[in-house]
Amino acid sequence: MLTTQDPLLQRSADARGVITLTMNRPQAFNALSEDLLEALQTELDLIARDEAARVVVLAAAGKAFCAGHDLREMRAAPSQRYYEKLFAQCGRMMLAIQRLDVPVIARVQGIATAAGCQLVAMCDLAVAARDARFAVSGVNLGLFCSTPSVALSRNVSRKAAFEMLVTGGFISADEALAKGLVNRVVDAAQLDAEVESLVASIVGKPKVAIGMGKQLFYRQLEVGIEAAYADAVETMACNMMNDKALEGVQAFIDKRPPKW
Amino acid sequence: MLTTQDPLLQRSADARGVITLTMNRPQAFNALSEDLLEALQTELDLIARDEAARVVVLAAAGKAFCAGHDLREMRAAPSQRYYEKLFAQCGRMMLAIQRLDVPVIARVQGIATAAGCQLVAMCDLAVAARDARFAVSGVNLGLFCSTPSVALSRNVSRKAAFEMLVTGGFISADEALAKGLVNRVVDAAQLDAEVESLVASIVGKPKVAIGMGKQLFYRQLEVGIEAAYADAVETMACNMMNDKALEGVQAFIDKRPPKW
Amino acid sequence: MLTTQDPLLQRSADARGVITLTMNRPQAFNALSEDLLEALQTELDLIARDEAARVVVLAAAGKAFCAGHDLREMRAAPSQRYYEKLFAQCGRMMLAIQRLDVPVIARVQGIATAAGCQLVAMCDLAVAARDARFAVSGVNLGLFCSTPSVALSRNVSRKAAFEMLVTGGFISADEALAKGLVNRVVDAAQLDAEVESLVASIVGKPKVAIGMGKQLFYRQLEVGIEAAYADAVETMACNMMNDKALEGVQAFIDKRPPKW
Repeated sequence: MLTTQDPLLQRSADARGVITLTMNRPQAFNALSEDLLEALQTELDLIARDEAARVVVLAAAGKAFCAGHDLREMRAAPSQRYYEKLFAQCGRMMLAIQRLDVPVIARVQGIATAAGCQLVAMCDLAVAARDARFAVSGVNLGLFCSTPSVALSRNVSRKAAFEMLVTGGFISADEALAKGLVNRVVDAAQLDAEVESLVASIVGKPKVAIGMGKQLFYRQLEVGIEAAYADAVETMACNMMNDKALEGVQAFIDKRPPKW
Repeated sequence: MLTTQDPLLQRSADARGVITLTMNRPQAFNALSEDLLEALQTELDLIARDEAARVVVLAAAGKAFCAGHDLREMRAAPSQRYYEKLFAQCGRMMLAIQRLDVPVIARVQGIATAAGCQLVAMCDLAVAARDARFAVSGVNLGLFCSTPSVALSRNVSRKAAFEMLVTGGFISADEALAKGLVNRVVDAAQLDAEVESLVASIVGKPKVAIGMGKQLFYRQLEVGIEAAYADAVETMACNMMNDKALEGVQAFIDKRPPKW
Repeated sequence: MLTTQDPLLQRSADARGVITLTMNRPQAFNALSEDLLEALQTELDLIARDEAARVVVLAAAGKAFCAGHDLREMRAAPSQRYYEKLFAQCGRMMLAIQRLDVPVIARVQGIATAAGCQLVAMCDLAVAARDARFAVSGVNLGLFCSTPSVALSRNVSRKAAFEMLVTGGFISADEALAKGLVNRVVDAAQLDAEVESLVASIVGKPKVAIGMGKQLFYRQLEVGIEAAYADAVETMACNMMNDKALEGVQAFIDKRPPKW
């Protein structure tokens, strides 16, 4: 396993193509400084070109998952132009998660607030420790979590999202599960094992099927149902013509495991 | 009650206009062969022109509801062109369910997988036996359930749909209920009674109101809220001018049952 | 506190800018007569221009929240043109709730049916007494709740909305909570206290942040995720440049309460 010890973002990859990115500013609750945003973007861009990559786990060092933007840095040089650039940089990184061919799993402990909550929402899957808590708390400082609302409102119901956004209050991991923000909640001691169960399920399937499927999934959500079906029909036919699917279906017919 | 004993798709209709279509390939877990897809399309097209039709129950013979496409048939003649045609044929049938004026209720026992799960998602309503199980399991064979994802992602939350699609794992009937994939879950012995309670509620209302309403419901979901209201205003005014509604409202004012 | 005793719609406002509009046709279960619709529109238009307004509570006198349109009035002068005008007037008022800069909280007791249920769905937040019940019951009279379906289907899952619309049946407050139609359910005796806890949370934050955020929230829901982010980035940068946010963020850094 190769591990880089970037001061801000640790990267490890195993032989299966499981890449773990660990945000490493524990003393700052992994706040998304410009440098950390850039480090995330760089790694996501590398993974996008990495043929061996199969799944990404987005993890965090220390007590918290991520507390959002780095407020000290943000406050230092106020200008409309600077903030537009900063939030655009952040939004680009968030969209890069969704655009990646491989699934991204958030591994969440402690707090996930503001852009940290947005990170969880933008990941394809999320597993949370039972003591994790989620908030879009910018409004408490007079800064409505507008960019996080884009991700949050695509995960949870309208009224639940609105309440979180105007109150800035926390919801528990169990509430996040019930509302659709995370997939699974487990005791903190089981967090790695639960993430691994999702990882193992994904790496057991052909990369090409997962990749085409993920791209199609988000594309079709943005169009009407008829256009969505047209896109899905073409995608699925293309997927079926792939060797992996032809072998997978044949193996199923033959009642044997596929030779992938 | 008229019952046709098509080898693939049984059709029965009662005096109320309740049409039950029963997929009848129990030995193949009601896999959607081309012939079964065509039989479903033919019946749906007939129902679309049937003035007496009031509601459709989509049921299945044997232990399973539907296991998706017929893989043996699908594997026999692989070509991009063939698969596009096959998936397009399937998508057309799925959309025909939604486009029908009358509500379609899925009556689900056993497994509903891949295009079988998609069938449940595309029906307007679904009642499941407590032991029913749902999966979009194509990914297990290297074939991501792209067309089912169109329907599934319009029924359940984003992360729940994505998890089902990349893991291929089953969810229980109770989970399907909690996630929004089905309306009601009952003991297997109560399945027909529960379907009948929905049927009875629908046939007790004027066909024209249900028909205009169903069409509007899916139309307005695809546009912004202002356009949705404009469409709904016109639809509702038109509905109100119908004799059935004028009488229904008058009867309510007069505190008597409507004379329909 | 200023209170007007309009025969149809009572208005009270406190020193914090909390405006309570109380529908006051208890004998008619607060049915939305043309006059009440107009009174609501007038008040919403006034609030839209009221710099001191911070939050609106939409309440109802008597046993019921709102039973929808006034059927007696509606039945008196039937014409396509009249109904189009009436439903358009109603839709305009519903959209005015969403377009208001300040959050609107529904305070719900008893029944909320048809356009009454729509009112709850259109409010940004809703708190219900445990004995409240919700239905889109027009279909029982032969009049499908088309305009309410626009709001309902943007709050609850597709199958749950469809079931309510074709059966016309009631759901309980707890079911409404689970489905996403309301935010909180409490004993009737706690209804005002629970509404106040939301109110207090909102008025504790800068008006400008809540206002920009609410507008952005509904705008971005109607476009694709890339366009949504572009809009949110600009909104959030603009919000951050506001004095309230600059002070709020600085106060957070300084570990002191903001001086707003």
